[in-house]
Amino acid sequence: MKNTKEIFELALNAKFKTKECPQKKIYESIGYSLFAGGKRIRPILCMKMYEIFQNDDYDDVIDFAISLEMIHTYSLIHDDLPAMDNDDYRRGKLTNHKVFKEDIAILAGDGLLNLAYENMFEKILSSSEKNRDRYIRAAKIISDSAGIDGMIGGQVVDMLSERNDESRIELNKEILEYIHINKTSKLIEASLLSGAVIGGAIDEEIDIVREYGRIIGQLFQIRDDILDEIGDSEKLGKSVGIDKRNNKLTYISLYGLDKTIEIAEKLALDAKKCLQSLDRDISFFENMVDYLMTREK
Amino acid sequence: MKNTKEIFELALNAKFKTKECPQKKIYESIGYSLFAGGKRIRPILCMKMYEIFQNDDYDDVIDFAISLEMIHTYSLIHDDLPAMDNDDYRRGKLTNHKVFKEDIAILAGDGLLNLAYENMFEKILSSSEKNRDRYIRAAKIISDSAGIDGMIGGQVVDMLSERNDESRIELNKEILEYIHINKTSKLIEASLLSGAVIGGAIDEEIDIVREYGRIIGQLFQIRDDILDEIGDSEKLGKSVGIDKRNNKLTYISLYGLDKTIEIAEKLALDAKKCLQSLDRDISFFENMVDYLMTREK
Repeated sequence: MKNTKEIFELALNAKFKTKECPQKKIYESIGYSLFAGGKRIRPILCMKMYEIFQNDDYDDVIDFAISLEMIHTYSLIHDDLPAMDNDDYRRGKLTNHKVFKEDIAILAGDGLLNLAYENMFEKILSSSEKNRDRYIRAAKIISDSAGIDGMIGGQVVDMLSERNDESRIELNKEILEYIHINKTSKLIEASLLSGAVIGGAIDEEIDIVREYGRIIGQLFQIRDDILDEIGDSEKLGKSVGIDKRNNKLTYISLYGLDKTIEIAEKLALDAKKCLQSLDRDISFFENMVDYLMTREK
Repeated sequence: MKNTKEIFELALNAKFKTKECPQKKIYESIGYSLFAGGKRIRPILCMKMYEIFQNDDYDDVIDFAISLEMIHTYSLIHDDLPAMDNDDYRRGKLTNHKVFKEDIAILAGDGLLNLAYENMFEKILSSSEKNRDRYIRAAKIISDSAGIDGMIGGQVVDMLSERNDESRIELNKEILEYIHINKTSKLIEASLLSGAVIGGAIDEEIDIVREYGRIIGQLFQIRDDILDEIGDSEKLGKSVGIDKRNNKLTYISLYGLDKTIEIAEKLALDAKKCLQSLDRDISFFENMVDYLMTREK
């Protein structure tokens, strides 16, 4: 995983450079968030999934991995805005709008989202006939996962669940699940699926990857809830106990800590089991499950 | 033009419908701005340019026309936000964030931008081999024009030119031109170019279309400046005289009204002249120049 991450960091550094131009400020703002120490989980999942169907020469897949991280990063910049979660810190650093002001932060988010697609179109345009169809299918999967019936839709419902007027959406188990699946799982799922599609996976394999993605998306979210309850704010680079203070509906408030851990363990088993039918070297993805179960930040 | 606009409205209505779902609010918010009485100039330019190279059956080009209007609309929603231009009215109606609050307005903008690309990928994916390459080239042109070296970059410089701290960019003739070209002209140019590319224009023709686009983008901006000076706020659906009150650098403040009109007339002649070498029926685009010179809203 470390090696894959290093390859990704090098490629991202080569791809995105601040340049001298009247709008230099937005390059700085985008660079600030793009290189703020993210875990790079989505691009790594994409690259590693490509690898089990193809090989570890990531040239064919790296641009899509970069676009996935750009989409994830834009969503963080916009989520942190005063009109949304109003967060001052992210990963122990000031949030984008605290450094660059709100106008530039909004535009940096817009710019990153657009850049993700510029990047994909460039790759599609320059691709061989053989790869082209796979790229287009991968791009469609990614764009659908990020849209109003995906990540953005999840954030909308999350925002509305915190309102106190007639537009408020009351949280219940189904709505909580809806938020998690859309806000978090779908882009993670799309990361895995795009890697599989570009790697040449067939339909049956893609179904298995989708199921795995859906489960680890949930695991990711559950661990977030657990870390907010029992995590170390220094390691996390953000405050803990926020969900409880805000009376937020989480796995913990819904099931309690013990039962939540039990649910997570069951999901972890399911995730590993579903991949076994792939008949590929799935060790990385088994380890990923263990990592998601034990991560401290 | 009227007929083309009607065809576009029908297609947009068929494409975008509010549906029952937890995130219904974002559908309503997007629909509010998408159907707020826009002039549809960008999609009409795209469709009409396609027509002079192909025919007036717009099936092949309409999805790209829709995506262009989605990108334009998202940029208006974000430009109006309190952290940007802080406008309460647009086209005589309350701006998106005044109706749906800032969080949903930001997400509606994000959602529209993403939807524009979902839409293009869907069209590319379902296209015949013949059209596929044209679509990909058109998508690349559009995405580049909308990005940080295009429309977003122009908005960044515009925002920075209004700041009063060390990040302020001092306005001069070059910077003003930079803002206009990027913030306004590039997407208009991309509308024309994508129509030409999908219509099958060859490289020499594309160069001519690009030049025409660059010029009418400027005309569009100059007329905006003139309307802010001498326009009718009722027809415009927004206040006038704002530029003067804000000491904004415009064509008017730079050259005065008479000289500005003179510049516009010269550009109008250039635009018509450059199209004549196309050897196509360019009457619509000649009329477009006259319309841009005389429009009152």
